[in-house]
Amino acid sequence: MESKQNQFPKVIIIGGGFGGIQLAKKLKNKEADVLMLDRHNYHTFQPLLYQVATGGLEPDSIAFPLRKVFKHQKNFNFRVADVQQIIPTENKVITDIGEYSYDYLVLATGSETNFFGQKEIEHFSMPMKTVPEALNLRSLILQNFEEALMEKDAVRKEALMTFIVVGGGPTGVETAGALAELKNHVLVNDYPELDIKNMKIYLIESDERVLSPFSIEASTKAKDFLENMGVNVLVKTRVNHYDGDKITYNNDTETIFTKAVIWSAGVKGALIPGLENAELARGGRLKTTNYNLVNGYNNIFAIGDLAYMETEDFPNGHPGVAQVAIQQGQQLALNFLRILNNEKPHPFDYFDKGSMATIGRNKAVVDLKYWKFQGFFAWLTWMFIHLLFLVGFRNKLVTLMNWIVNYFSYDRGTRVIIRKFNRQSMMEEAQAK
Amino acid sequence: MESKQNQFPKVIIIGGGFGGIQLAKKLKNKEADVLMLDRHNYHTFQPLLYQVATGGLEPDSIAFPLRKVFKHQKNFNFRVADVQQIIPTENKVITDIGEYSYDYLVLATGSETNFFGQKEIEHFSMPMKTVPEALNLRSLILQNFEEALMEKDAVRKEALMTFIVVGGGPTGVETAGALAELKNHVLVNDYPELDIKNMKIYLIESDERVLSPFSIEASTKAKDFLENMGVNVLVKTRVNHYDGDKITYNNDTETIFTKAVIWSAGVKGALIPGLENAELARGGRLKTTNYNLVNGYNNIFAIGDLAYMETEDFPNGHPGVAQVAIQQGQQLALNFLRILNNEKPHPFDYFDKGSMATIGRNKAVVDLKYWKFQGFFAWLTWMFIHLLFLVGFRNKLVTLMNWIVNYFSYDRGTRVIIRKFNRQSMMEEAQAK
Repeated sequence: MESKQNQFPKVIIIGGGFGGIQLAKKLKNKEADVLMLDRHNYHTFQPLLYQVATGGLEPDSIAFPLRKVFKHQKNFNFRVADVQQIIPTENKVITDIGEYSYDYLVLATGSETNFFGQKEIEHFSMPMKTVPEALNLRSLILQNFEEALMEKDAVRKEALMTFIVVGGGPTGVETAGALAELKNHVLVNDYPELDIKNMKIYLIESDERVLSPFSIEASTKAKDFLENMGVNVLVKTRVNHYDGDKITYNNDTETIFTKAVIWSAGVKGALIPGLENAELARGGRLKTTNYNLVNGYNNIFAIGDLAYMETEDFPNGHPGVAQVAIQQGQQLALNFLRILNNEKPHPFDYFDKGSMATIGRNKAVVDLKYWKFQGFFAWLTWMFIHLLFLVGFRNKLVTLMNWIVNYFSYDRGTRVIIRKFNRQSMMEEAQAK
Repeated sequence: MESKQNQFPKVIIIGGGFGGIQLAKKLKNKEADVLMLDRHNYHTFQPLLYQVATGGLEPDSIAFPLRKVFKHQKNFNFRVADVQQIIPTENKVITDIGEYSYDYLVLATGSETNFFGQKEIEHFSMPMKTVPEALNLRSLILQNFEEALMEKDAVRKEALMTFIVVGGGPTGVETAGALAELKNHVLVNDYPELDIKNMKIYLIESDERVLSPFSIEASTKAKDFLENMGVNVLVKTRVNHYDGDKITYNNDTETIFTKAVIWSAGVKGALIPGLENAELARGGRLKTTNYNLVNGYNNIFAIGDLAYMETEDFPNGHPGVAQVAIQQGQQLALNFLRILNNEKPHPFDYFDKGSMATIGRNKAVVDLKYWKFQGFFAWLTWMFIHLLFLVGFRNKLVTLMNWIVNYFSYDRGTRVIIRKFNRQSMMEEAQAK
């Protein structure tokens, strides 16, 4: 709780995601000197990454310049920096552009793709947690089709046209659905030389149902929607290996040849080295008190996906969704002000606004506390909510325009390979490791 | 004039630019079997690349999937292919994905950046002829500012904030103007820690005026506009060297320290090896007859920027602009049909619709045959014409939305560094050569 004379306490926020942005915004004009560090100069609206990957939206419409968010916020500074190490004993962080000291440190780094230690899968499959990763996937989908045109071997041709999404959470379900629409409305016209029936889409989930944190009603309907759109949904199925050519599952008893595996099977906390006193929960999340203070420290906080907080309503921690990050960011800002006034911080109390996922045009599922609904109205709700939370007026407008055009034309206009995905170098890197 | 029995003659078009697209479209439902080859799977609307580079438009809104242009055109095929060699004696082309035979070959490869043999400048400066190049420039501009924040040395700090555009043609003028707007309306807010007055923009032109092919009126007004916006316009100035740190000009007597040189000083024909009988004109263009047949061949044609055709009105060839390519593409399609019917092809007669360039908001210059005007109405005309020729309804809509938002907010919303430009590897590559 140290603070320099005649200076506001220095708060470093690592990460410009949902939580970091809310926290910094709420500290506007308050007695704190805020520095935000992020690897990118933009905020990523992760819930729509899958639409970038499937040619429905341009990357720039779900990315928002962080400096613009905090235009005219005088107590705010920003640096594009990769934080490599935290040194809690000296209250400083080490980054690729230098060292920064803090009085309070807030870790809002979110989560990263979890391959559960399966190095082989990590090398060969496509994650989708960042804009460049979504763009790589977009390129790969189109490149595979271009390659399939040239391929004479029937097995390899089908492998190029087979897309496997692993993980039946919202991202996996939404991606599989978007791939099915790409197949049925776009690729069928773009590649008349190929038999589109050979394009296969699989969604593989280890749990007994897709969207397992949702209601049974939503899960069932989502599976129906997907199957009607032509997606092969495999539940209670665990992937064993993927070597870049074939994926095996069910204890290696079954095999599918594929040149595209999209991995959305799990996330883990995006940890930064140096927090030796911290306690880790499942999924690499940092255990915190009920006001987001990291256990073992008195001036380091964690919010959002990275934080693991046990409460009465959430004895196993909160879900890794935007709403938790947003509410924790807002709450922590208020608690900072209380702490600075030597008041007692308030415990976090998550207000669950519900869950939703979209599968395709007119097809979505929404679980609210007292109301569950699916179909067209759910789909409208999903769009409305996503537009509402998308950062920036320009982004909202461009996204809405794209959705309107896509809806009426059945098209996906951004199917351009701006930078080729280099499969060769992926293969070489995998071999080198 | 060979053609296989019971088959239409095979026409290979290399390049999906303005000319290639028009030609292929006009051959729809005609007795020709068209194959288009392009390195990219999309058409690039080059006149707006500078707005991508300066954060005003997303790359996807000026790129259009080529397969979509020719949806439902049955006599059309497309391949993403890099043509490496033409073998005229065997009527075939060799590409990175295999060989293709033709009865008629049309070269519509356009032009590429001309560094006039100055290897050093080629290594260190930023060209802007493709979407990835424009995105590299966008990243570099923003990265330089992020770096300037961290730089303690005053000279190096100013070098990071100094942008030099070489070449005062439409692209150079438009880029310099867009940089000035970025400075005055965006960067000034994004980087309050930097003194924006230290950001310097130069436009260097070797001729005695910018926009030298335009009217004196347009040139003068463009220079006025630029200078009022804070651009230093140097005419009759020839760049001698650029080593990545400083640029020298006027016989090495003058020096500016800069970490960003944008090279728009010239183009040359994008030639493919193998045409040994061809005659080259200035700027690496292929000499053609007045119906675009390449001199020295009887079944190889060239259109657009690559073609050099001397006519009464254009004794030194046609300007390298979209309109020439469009009209030559259309005309060649008609001439193909004449040739296939053993009729005489018609000579090309360019209808010059005029020239225009935009400098900034409400500031453009337009030269029509009988009417020259500048300012607000010229700017509206420029926008209208560019929207008209931009390929695709979605692209037109998204571009218009961006322009409206940019106009009223004075903002440039796509200032995101999605893929960092790697200056280090540019430097290393330069040293290796």
